[in-house]
Amino acid sequence: MIIIMKHHATADEIAGAVAHIESLGFKAHLSSGEERTIIGVIGDERPIEPEHFELLNGVERAVRILHPFKLASRDFHPEDSVVKINGVAVGTSQVIVMAGPCSVESREQLMETAAAVKQAGAHILRGGAFKPRTSPYAFQGLGLKGLELLREAREQYQMPIVTEVISPQEVTLVAQYSDILQIGARNMQNFALLHAVGEIQKPVLLKRGLMSTIEELLMAAEYILSHGNQRVILCERGIRTFETATRNTFDINAIPVLKSLTHLPILADPSHGTGRWELVSPVARGAVAAGADGLLIEVHCNPARALSDGAQSLKPENFAKMVTDVRRIAQAIGRTV
Amino acid sequence: MIIIMKHHATADEIAGAVAHIESLGFKAHLSSGEERTIIGVIGDERPIEPEHFELLNGVERAVRILHPFKLASRDFHPEDSVVKINGVAVGTSQVIVMAGPCSVESREQLMETAAAVKQAGAHILRGGAFKPRTSPYAFQGLGLKGLELLREAREQYQMPIVTEVISPQEVTLVAQYSDILQIGARNMQNFALLHAVGEIQKPVLLKRGLMSTIEELLMAAEYILSHGNQRVILCERGIRTFETATRNTFDINAIPVLKSLTHLPILADPSHGTGRWELVSPVARGAVAAGADGLLIEVHCNPARALSDGAQSLKPENFAKMVTDVRRIAQAIGRTV
Amino acid sequence: MIIIMKHHATADEIAGAVAHIESLGFKAHLSSGEERTIIGVIGDERPIEPEHFELLNGVERAVRILHPFKLASRDFHPEDSVVKINGVAVGTSQVIVMAGPCSVESREQLMETAAAVKQAGAHILRGGAFKPRTSPYAFQGLGLKGLELLREAREQYQMPIVTEVISPQEVTLVAQYSDILQIGARNMQNFALLHAVGEIQKPVLLKRGLMSTIEELLMAAEYILSHGNQRVILCERGIRTFETATRNTFDINAIPVLKSLTHLPILADPSHGTGRWELVSPVARGAVAAGADGLLIEVHCNPARALSDGAQSLKPENFAKMVTDVRRIAQAIGRTV
Amino acid sequence: MIIIMKHHATADEIAGAVAHIESLGFKAHLSSGEERTIIGVIGDERPIEPEHFELLNGVERAVRILHPFKLASRDFHPEDSVVKINGVAVGTSQVIVMAGPCSVESREQLMETAAAVKQAGAHILRGGAFKPRTSPYAFQGLGLKGLELLREAREQYQMPIVTEVISPQEVTLVAQYSDILQIGARNMQNFALLHAVGEIQKPVLLKRGLMSTIEELLMAAEYILSHGNQRVILCERGIRTFETATRNTFDINAIPVLKSLTHLPILADPSHGTGRWELVSPVARGAVAAGADGLLIEVHCNPARALSDGAQSLKPENFAKMVTDVRRIAQAIGRTV
Repeated sequence: MIIIMKHHATADEIAGAVAHIESLGFKAHLSSGEERTIIGVIGDERPIEPEHFELLNGVERAVRILHPFKLASRDFHPEDSVVKINGVAVGTSQVIVMAGPCSVESREQLMETAAAVKQAGAHILRGGAFKPRTSPYAFQGLGLKGLELLREAREQYQMPIVTEVISPQEVTLVAQYSDILQIGARNMQNFALLHAVGEIQKPVLLKRGLMSTIEELLMAAEYILSHGNQRVILCERGIRTFETATRNTFDINAIPVLKSLTHLPILADPSHGTGRWELVSPVARGAVAAGADGLLIEVHCNPARALSDGAQSLKPENFAKMVTDVRRIAQAIGRTV
Repeated sequence: MIIIMKHHATADEIAGAVAHIESLGFKAHLSSGEERTIIGVIGDERPIEPEHFELLNGVERAVRILHPFKLASRDFHPEDSVVKINGVAVGTSQVIVMAGPCSVESREQLMETAAAVKQAGAHILRGGAFKPRTSPYAFQGLGLKGLELLREAREQYQMPIVTEVISPQEVTLVAQYSDILQIGARNMQNFALLHAVGEIQKPVLLKRGLMSTIEELLMAAEYILSHGNQRVILCERGIRTFETATRNTFDINAIPVLKSLTHLPILADPSHGTGRWELVSPVARGAVAAGADGLLIEVHCNPARALSDGAQSLKPENFAKMVTDVRRIAQAIGRTV
Repeated sequence: MIIIMKHHATADEIAGAVAHIESLGFKAHLSSGEERTIIGVIGDERPIEPEHFELLNGVERAVRILHPFKLASRDFHPEDSVVKINGVAVGTSQVIVMAGPCSVESREQLMETAAAVKQAGAHILRGGAFKPRTSPYAFQGLGLKGLELLREAREQYQMPIVTEVISPQEVTLVAQYSDILQIGARNMQNFALLHAVGEIQKPVLLKRGLMSTIEELLMAAEYILSHGNQRVILCERGIRTFETATRNTFDINAIPVLKSLTHLPILADPSHGTGRWELVSPVARGAVAAGADGLLIEVHCNPARALSDGAQSLKPENFAKMVTDVRRIAQAIGRTV
Repeated sequence: MIIIMKHHATADEIAGAVAHIESLGFKAHLSSGEERTIIGVIGDERPIEPEHFELLNGVERAVRILHPFKLASRDFHPEDSVVKINGVAVGTSQVIVMAGPCSVESREQLMETAAAVKQAGAHILRGGAFKPRTSPYAFQGLGLKGLELLREAREQYQMPIVTEVISPQEVTLVAQYSDILQIGARNMQNFALLHAVGEIQKPVLLKRGLMSTIEELLMAAEYILSHGNQRVILCERGIRTFETATRNTFDINAIPVLKSLTHLPILADPSHGTGRWELVSPVARGAVAAGADGLLIEVHCNPARALSDGAQSLKPENFAKMVTDVRRIAQAIGRTV
């Protein structure tokens, strides 16, 4: 941590800041510039927020030196992590495609979609059983019945499945059915839930909050890692900005930034990242070209009848076309799908 | 809902959209402009999202006509709601002040702060026992021990208390201790939690998410109201923007906007809304001048030793000065504190 | 400037960074922490951007220590600046009200509005002659004819006037007519225009860009000040955020932040800050309660016939009511209107 | 335009709105829903803003039906526009690369860079002579001397050039030297400048403002087109969001959105879009994969000595590598470089 004193800070204020730093068990290191004194705080600053120092008399600002995350950091784990899920490995040179309906709506709908995405080349089947919905009047998912249908599709089509868990109470239940537990964007800072999935041994797909920074995403991963679960897959799914032409703004920059900061694999979700099906394929190609380790795609056999997110769901034929296009992009950068 | 067809939409596409609308049980009402056809959807559109229609062939865009919330809307409940809490009424001409430490840290800290805020004129004591923290390495609150200390302070200083609940499992427990249950900003769209507090009969203080629109705040309130709990108090606490000079941007516009859209009372939290203690008093004055029904303020006897949010906590003497200033503002607009 | 080296930075990389710093005429000051080396850059860093250092091998990040502005900074000019305009002083304990139509549309419209705002207590008349409009098909202002009408209103009602200048070519012309030159939000970083108004001796009303940070606003002021014109008045007018319920988000935090960073006076423009006339009065009260030195308000005798910005214009009777309300707020904090 | 009346709007208010619509020369078309009346406004609504109607008594909201741009719209110009510049065509299946230094600093610097980018495969040379800088203390460009150097490089390396114009006064001058006039992000809504470049016959490269919507970008293009200049190339260069890990957030969604809305070609500028040289290549690949018609890239032979934007400039060898990578991506989607 670096503490920047105010322009007119007195000697007493500087001494006070130093005494405070030392009382916390850190060493203080003074440096007087032409206009300001700055104080280096020597020690592991991670548990402390810069704001802590900003209320000391004469302090103008404090700046973190270290990233606040450690287990998620590439500094301490230089090689890429590979997350293995029943025969599928995320984080290698193969780009992994997870696809399926937003919500599980019925056996027919799920089986038909599962067959189609399997045939088109998807590796993992997605589908929501517990649905977080903005409106209390909207379809909330089939719950346990949805989990059972997912298990059935899993057996029939021999694909691992990923489904969302929205509350700590249901973590154990969902873990009995699903190969991967998904933490949705609105729950990225639901710390009770992060704590709960950190204590089981199942891969977690952690989606970036729609207004969370990259650093906050890595701190959410740190929660899970620090509770003992090392199998975390990150997912960029678009952030909220002033632009209203699309539902979210897919942050393609985040892909190479995350690759440099962390060893964890990164997926891209262009369905939520754009909110419009006709934009999914171009943005999926872009994400893979920029280095994403996989894709999460919503597919529905009859989007106009979907009970949620129809507008951003691809029909099977468009999904198959997308996989073909993405495969060519992957090959152009020396990867496979 | 209004559906706007594309410029080159064909007669078949228009007929298809009409058939789809009717298949959902709505009536369709066509209107042909010079360049586009638009279709009105007649019926209660609330359970449906506009995006649902946007994937039909030939449709360019769909626009909601009705607000998606109903129980929270002033349209159906024109008079202001007043939430009563053991003798304190929120939503009248009296501006209510809730104050106390960010976290309950110890008996001494809590009692000293409670005495100070009571003396300065606060009506309700706040304090966190379960703390949602961005870092897994930061202080997570005293938990049950914190609740017990809050109950003790409540008895000793005869003030109702408000404390946060962060997980559905703890709703019953926290409700046994606290007069008001607080839903924090990061949990505003934790729907499992909203569901749980909607099923008990305790007032809820619902903070706006730092990434949430005013409409989403009202939809979160609608969750609670629709599950049977009518005592909801809203709280504006700053939103995330591109500006980095302050921790958040306090959205003062939201106060009169919410007053026009909903009958629920609105508090302002300038501590989180600014993130810096020296900005709390000016923004508190501004919020009350703009019509807020109350304030939520962080106070700590020794902010430099606070285990959380010290930088935005007022010392007791500054809090007392703030209450005096706010009282004058309240009087200038015909209210009291 | 502080330069933070990467975790694995080598001794050679550190030596290279030091050599680079010294080659630019600065001194380097090394400090080795447990995990990182940091380097202090001693000297006047203002002309250099932190990014300049970030491409050196082994450098992770560079952080500014000094504010990049100097003439605008309160550090070097502790007392408040007062800008005098033909008998009206901005920056004293009196809150100054500037009001009038968005655009000058006709003699009748301007004179009627001028009479009304004068009577209600406004100190300065505003009105646009050159209008920057998002659409090339919208009314672009009366130009020179508008300036002449403003001069006529100025004489008749004995009020100084403020009008916008949108291009360097017209600075001399507008300065012949107007008492204050307004730089609009979309031109806040039109550096050629800032340069031009910096070279004349007329007060400048500089509006914050809808996408500009507080620091960038002060850098824009620094442009004007550094070219020789010391009479700059700042104006907060709302920023662009994700919230769509209002046209902009009025950043009330900016008022006390600017008061602490700069000696220049600060106005508030709740007309643009909200975009809806019924929100103007509550936000005007809030801005004055938070410490604004004045208000800029759009008033129109017949908003539904306004050629621009009718939706955010107050009718004269509502404006008069607002001035009365604001006066009470000003008195509550020891100021006048 | 659709006008949505308030829930409790009276018959008189509805009649008043209809009368107002008709007084403006439009036809009104009423539709009464279960909870609200809506009124369709029939006619060319483009010159009118929705807010115009929102202040009528009883009106809740007005919604545009038509896009406010017409000349830029694909609705009226379905085929792609191709902009030809001395033998280079932008908007075909060939991806065009424009590259060079941020600022022209000296003959040696420019010639060395021009030689390098030409050799690596760039089609057009970029370089700034007039520089808009946030700080008045930063390097402001070589001005006329810079234009002369650009002309010299143009002849020597036989590449068309693009350079920025920042003020209406200099449009004629810059047009004498440059093949393309660039409008920078901070000037995207400098309407006097848009007007000026609309009246000459030179291709214009129009960069999206860092907080401008896609619609506003197209309205800025409409300014140029409506003044008679049909050769406009758009450029996505990153927008300002809450994320601070990168200088801007490159909006990859904007590429396919613009492709659907307009016939004008779209470039991508990953140098400004990321602000960090090591992110430029992945984002350039992503942009081309998503459909960009070209790239604008900052290249400097010695970035650590650059007088501006060094941190986001590629060295020639990295640029050459990037062109090779991008070429493979282009081929994967059936295009060339």
